[in-house]
Amino acid sequence: MEITSISNELVKQAVKLQQKKYRTQTKKFLLEGYKAIKEAYDYGIILETIFVEKQKINKYEFAKEKIIQTNSAVIKKISTTESAPDAVAVGIQKVFDKNILKSSKKVLLLESIKDVGNLGTIIRSSAAFGIDAIVLYGQTVDLYNPKCVRAAVGNLWKIPIVSIEDFNELKAEFKDYERIATLPKGEFFLKNYKPKYPLLIMFGSEADGLSEELENFSTGSVKIEMDKSVESLNLAASVAIILYQLS
Amino acid sequence: MEITSISNELVKQAVKLQQKKYRTQTKKFLLEGYKAIKEAYDYGIILETIFVEKQKINKYEFAKEKIIQTNSAVIKKISTTESAPDAVAVGIQKVFDKNILKSSKKVLLLESIKDVGNLGTIIRSSAAFGIDAIVLYGQTVDLYNPKCVRAAVGNLWKIPIVSIEDFNELKAEFKDYERIATLPKGEFFLKNYKPKYPLLIMFGSEADGLSEELENFSTGSVKIEMDKSVESLNLAASVAIILYQLS
Repeated sequence: MEITSISNELVKQAVKLQQKKYRTQTKKFLLEGYKAIKEAYDYGIILETIFVEKQKINKYEFAKEKIIQTNSAVIKKISTTESAPDAVAVGIQKVFDKNILKSSKKVLLLESIKDVGNLGTIIRSSAAFGIDAIVLYGQTVDLYNPKCVRAAVGNLWKIPIVSIEDFNELKAEFKDYERIATLPKGEFFLKNYKPKYPLLIMFGSEADGLSEELENFSTGSVKIEMDKSVESLNLAASVAIILYQLS
Repeated sequence: MEITSISNELVKQAVKLQQKKYRTQTKKFLLEGYKAIKEAYDYGIILETIFVEKQKINKYEFAKEKIIQTNSAVIKKISTTESAPDAVAVGIQKVFDKNILKSSKKVLLLESIKDVGNLGTIIRSSAAFGIDAIVLYGQTVDLYNPKCVRAAVGNLWKIPIVSIEDFNELKAEFKDYERIATLPKGEFFLKNYKPKYPLLIMFGSEADGLSEELENFSTGSVKIEMDKSVESLNLAASVAIILYQLS
């Protein structure tokens, strides 16, 4: 199949996936560039279509039946990066059932995280350090935002990620867990902290930290040892250090 | 003093500081928002002018003589953020002499770092974990890029940061240091590594890792223990973990 016009219906639908609204409606998302597309494919992510520049189709042999031959204008239109890649694909989001939490011994909770790059970086670190599941709590950015997909570098689907909006639901789900808040004024230094399992590790948002509600819900708190002149670390840096130390 | 037009000469000069070329020429930079301006001022960074929305000037009492009263249109024009702050300031860059390296026992080297957000985050972590100096080696983004200023959150000037472009200069400077490369195939696991001082900790760029030149220059290498399915971590996350572990 070949498409050369940016007003083609399939192109228009792909472009719409730049917006959260359409990603949520359709449960689809964008993958940009060879590495991202190949990693997703190898992992078993269902690709609906791959728009490929005509001269580059040989590289995408592995998913031949999904290829739509096209030109750089179409790819530029669909792509969200500054320098357009040689292909963009429409993938189907991987949706996890909350039941997965029942068998998760080490869960990361992120409250109202706002920076999609941070979220992707945190997912990548979580995959590296043996996190069983991630809970997005409160008002959170969209996991399948193209920037988050990029920052997770092929790790977005490796860990179950579920959303919980209701505090009572959260309470019921994690009532039997050790629930650790990570706070600048935490009671334990990270290096002295001995985790108990099942474990829930809770982080607040970039700007506001952990809500009082979740602070009160915690069974304990840790802080990262650091120079007094520095108020805090970047959220993704804090998460990386704590997950590494607990791994 | 009051300015209401975006074509005023002082406004135009401030706007130019959005570009690397003018920052390099003038050795000035932009600070955006109350917190950033206040922290820089308190640290002793020289502020040349502070453009403040007329209704907000009371908040900026501390640097009264630098204030230019203005309106939101002018601030929006100078600002690089999506939602304009209530003030923007022009500051003088803090320039460090390379001689400072002579007395630095724990130095971080970043080779050809490309992401300004990463650079700012790394500076913040370096301030938190006792790094004495940072060397920017190779082709590097501008330290005073507004995104880097923001990501460093008031830590940009706390550590001496110097640029070295020439390999021979680098060799001469660090010939007596333990020089550790951080590599996915490093010889030591981070948890087993015992540092010697003076110490140079070297990180490669986001896309290409450490150059062969620097790998050969290293006296040893470390890797972060992680799940085999994950190729690597985000650069700023790796740096945070290693600096924490060595602190």
